[in-house]
Amino acid sequence: MRPYNQVTEADLRFFRETMPGRVFSGEEISSDYDHDEMTEYGHFPPEAVLQALTTEEVSRVLAYCNERRIPVTPRGAGTGLCGGCVPIQGGIVLSTEKMKQVKEVDTRNMTATVEPGVLLLEFPQALEGTGLFYPPDPGEKTATMGGNAMTNAGGMRAVRYGVTRDYILGMEIVLASGEVLRLGGKNVKTSSGYSLINLMIGSEGTLGFLTELTVKLVPEPKVNLSVLLPFDDLDSCIGAVPQILNCGCDPTAVEFMEREVISCAETYLGKQFPDTSASAYLLVRLDGASRETLQPALDRLTDTALALGAGDVLLADTDERKESIWNARGAFLEAIKGSTPTMDECDVVVPRDRIPEYLRQVLAISWEERVRIRSFGHAGDGNLHVYVCRDELAEDEWKKRVAQVMDRLYAEAGKLQGGISGEHGIGHAKRGFLRENLGEKQIELMRGIKQVFDPNGILNPGKVFEGD
Amino acid sequence: MRPYNQVTEADLRFFRETMPGRVFSGEEISSDYDHDEMTEYGHFPPEAVLQALTTEEVSRVLAYCNERRIPVTPRGAGTGLCGGCVPIQGGIVLSTEKMKQVKEVDTRNMTATVEPGVLLLEFPQALEGTGLFYPPDPGEKTATMGGNAMTNAGGMRAVRYGVTRDYILGMEIVLASGEVLRLGGKNVKTSSGYSLINLMIGSEGTLGFLTELTVKLVPEPKVNLSVLLPFDDLDSCIGAVPQILNCGCDPTAVEFMEREVISCAETYLGKQFPDTSASAYLLVRLDGASRETLQPALDRLTDTALALGAGDVLLADTDERKESIWNARGAFLEAIKGSTPTMDECDVVVPRDRIPEYLRQVLAISWEERVRIRSFGHAGDGNLHVYVCRDELAEDEWKKRVAQVMDRLYAEAGKLQGGISGEHGIGHAKRGFLRENLGEKQIELMRGIKQVFDPNGILNPGKVFEGD
Repeated sequence: MRPYNQVTEADLRFFRETMPGRVFSGEEISSDYDHDEMTEYGHFPPEAVLQALTTEEVSRVLAYCNERRIPVTPRGAGTGLCGGCVPIQGGIVLSTEKMKQVKEVDTRNMTATVEPGVLLLEFPQALEGTGLFYPPDPGEKTATMGGNAMTNAGGMRAVRYGVTRDYILGMEIVLASGEVLRLGGKNVKTSSGYSLINLMIGSEGTLGFLTELTVKLVPEPKVNLSVLLPFDDLDSCIGAVPQILNCGCDPTAVEFMEREVISCAETYLGKQFPDTSASAYLLVRLDGASRETLQPALDRLTDTALALGAGDVLLADTDERKESIWNARGAFLEAIKGSTPTMDECDVVVPRDRIPEYLRQVLAISWEERVRIRSFGHAGDGNLHVYVCRDELAEDEWKKRVAQVMDRLYAEAGKLQGGISGEHGIGHAKRGFLRENLGEKQIELMRGIKQVFDPNGILNPGKVFEGD
Repeated sequence: MRPYNQVTEADLRFFRETMPGRVFSGEEISSDYDHDEMTEYGHFPPEAVLQALTTEEVSRVLAYCNERRIPVTPRGAGTGLCGGCVPIQGGIVLSTEKMKQVKEVDTRNMTATVEPGVLLLEFPQALEGTGLFYPPDPGEKTATMGGNAMTNAGGMRAVRYGVTRDYILGMEIVLASGEVLRLGGKNVKTSSGYSLINLMIGSEGTLGFLTELTVKLVPEPKVNLSVLLPFDDLDSCIGAVPQILNCGCDPTAVEFMEREVISCAETYLGKQFPDTSASAYLLVRLDGASRETLQPALDRLTDTALALGAGDVLLADTDERKESIWNARGAFLEAIKGSTPTMDECDVVVPRDRIPEYLRQVLAISWEERVRIRSFGHAGDGNLHVYVCRDELAEDEWKKRVAQVMDRLYAEAGKLQGGISGEHGIGHAKRGFLRENLGEKQIELMRGIKQVFDPNGILNPGKVFEGD
């Protein structure tokens, strides 16, 4: 481990001069800052919390901490699921929660420039009346746009629109040295040297601190409709996905869900799901310019789904019906979380046609290891969220079983040429699995890159891969 | 400069053992290998040319050259425009021209896996009958897919579909050490550590040698139509672009062209363009599932264009009409090239709404420096191809003026927050301009990354940025 320094009174004085009224230490620090949404991965209290407002402040604090060898853990809204924003090596948490300005909406270039602390749920207000929208749509709407950029968050509309990476045109980044870089801008095409901006995206704050983001906007589809497709069994349900994607209906989202998870959400929300007769469902969303132009796509989807064994085609084109379905879908994570004292999760991604195979393995693992596992996910992307529930297990037994189960879940993904994380990231909780999945050489290259950007290793130490 | 070694007889013996019948030296080397499509940037003969067939061979040759400090310049079809595949430091050219296998077309996952030497014009044959297509559409169809990946080539369909980067899911890369990496795969989403694959894309062969590529395919649009929009002047022509992009017609391509360039193409092809009455044109392409579903988009485009001053809306929906327009568009580069003994080019990209401003500056520069400049490009992306023609100028005078003109062209792009290259890359010809545009710090980070991947600096030395 690197020889980091602890935060002293003199350090706190410097921080307080730089960010008056926005520095917290000791008892003043809310316990929120010692974890993210997965308390399973432990509590790590920071020595100080700083709420940045400007690039200039961030630059001064980073230069200082770099000189003093104080770890700096960037944090947005803390909604992550793998401990990415948790200060496992101590030092300071540098929070973007007050950097919430939408600086510009440029309708001619179809871009917006925002500070990193803008929440996903807040951003649409800034676009009202422009006819434009920002497609990335991760389930967690209280996440920050900065956090989304630094984890390359995905979300439900990725089938048609792609992930966060596909919408980032420009970044302002403060390096560990305090130097400020502008990467990209409003240009939509570039072939101008190594893509530092793409290296930054998904780097979880280990290479630089994001202070500004320019994103691409697209014309807002005027109408959308959702279709719920019930299937008798999971195999035919997931098996239908490739042909649905290829039938020309150009879906925005293709989600799959099983009856058990739906029941869980019904209990959690206290609301009924429109249909619970089948054991597995696909939920498909279509976006378009008008109801009429969507009809051919809907016809194609209907024909394809029925031919592949869907028991029905349940159309949701009223707001009420759509809400009841999508609210349930949006509550899955919280509902599963609420059904068990603690849980562990994995966010594997496999080639789309391997999902049935993978889910069969999940079922086998669940039986063999005697733990309850619930899963749902983005069938259109091969990205699955798999939750291992502790339920009534005693601490010792849980620790033993969950370790074994997670190992097996990731190993199975690896066998199918899958990846460790589709959209949640690595943080500190998934480092070992990443190394296992990618092999030592790729981790070595990443460590080398880290060394180039942050030679003293002060930025979010211990994340993505083990320290050097 | 690094202390590279020259290729010896012993080296040639090793190469010939490794790649029997595919090693050329001395007089055997075709002069094609000493330049790319821009002879203006000089001739640099390689000491040997090796035509690779397998990853295994590439690995053995790289490990050998790394040990022996022999520069290795990767080369596809040599269609580049900035000297990227030219061995400016000597050593060997390692060509992918014989690595032409389409290894797999996976219709269920909608991916294809190809060797790097497959030409853009050859690839569609492998997809026939699948209903799938590969959207990236650079003008130069005899370029290789590997070359496209390594320069992040763009092309005309980028407005709707994005650039090459957006279609690369997996790569097999041989490092300078000879180690073989598999980056990505068939997964369509990932948040699993630094994106080494995105770092590799557009790195022009300076970080690793590409031996296999897995690309994303999408359902092929069943019909397309093209619309030619004549405008009285360039300002109103380009000024219409933001609203056309935002009117909901979802164009695949939005190209602009001026009468002078069209005339040039008419002469070159010996064929008439359908309309030459106006001084500037937009060419818009719409893709869709059927002629009927395209009608609302066409209506919206028509209304928007006429309201913004288009003199007419010339619909090309027959193959003959479409061909006559797109063939002319496809011939612009060759036509301009044919109209002058030599030329220099720049491939700047600016925010879309700055194109008129930029083109006014180009006009001013042309007048002030007394050189003929022709331009055309991807209006929908802000990506302009600007050609500075030598015409009757004497060698000395040309050298002086072109240097001055290129400096000014790039400086103006910089003032508008533009980038050096939208899709052609940097090679050795644009290195100075890149440094100017990005600043020393970004180049320093790129050099650091280079050092991590290729500590001996054998891979395509002197490209993207100056040597260390």
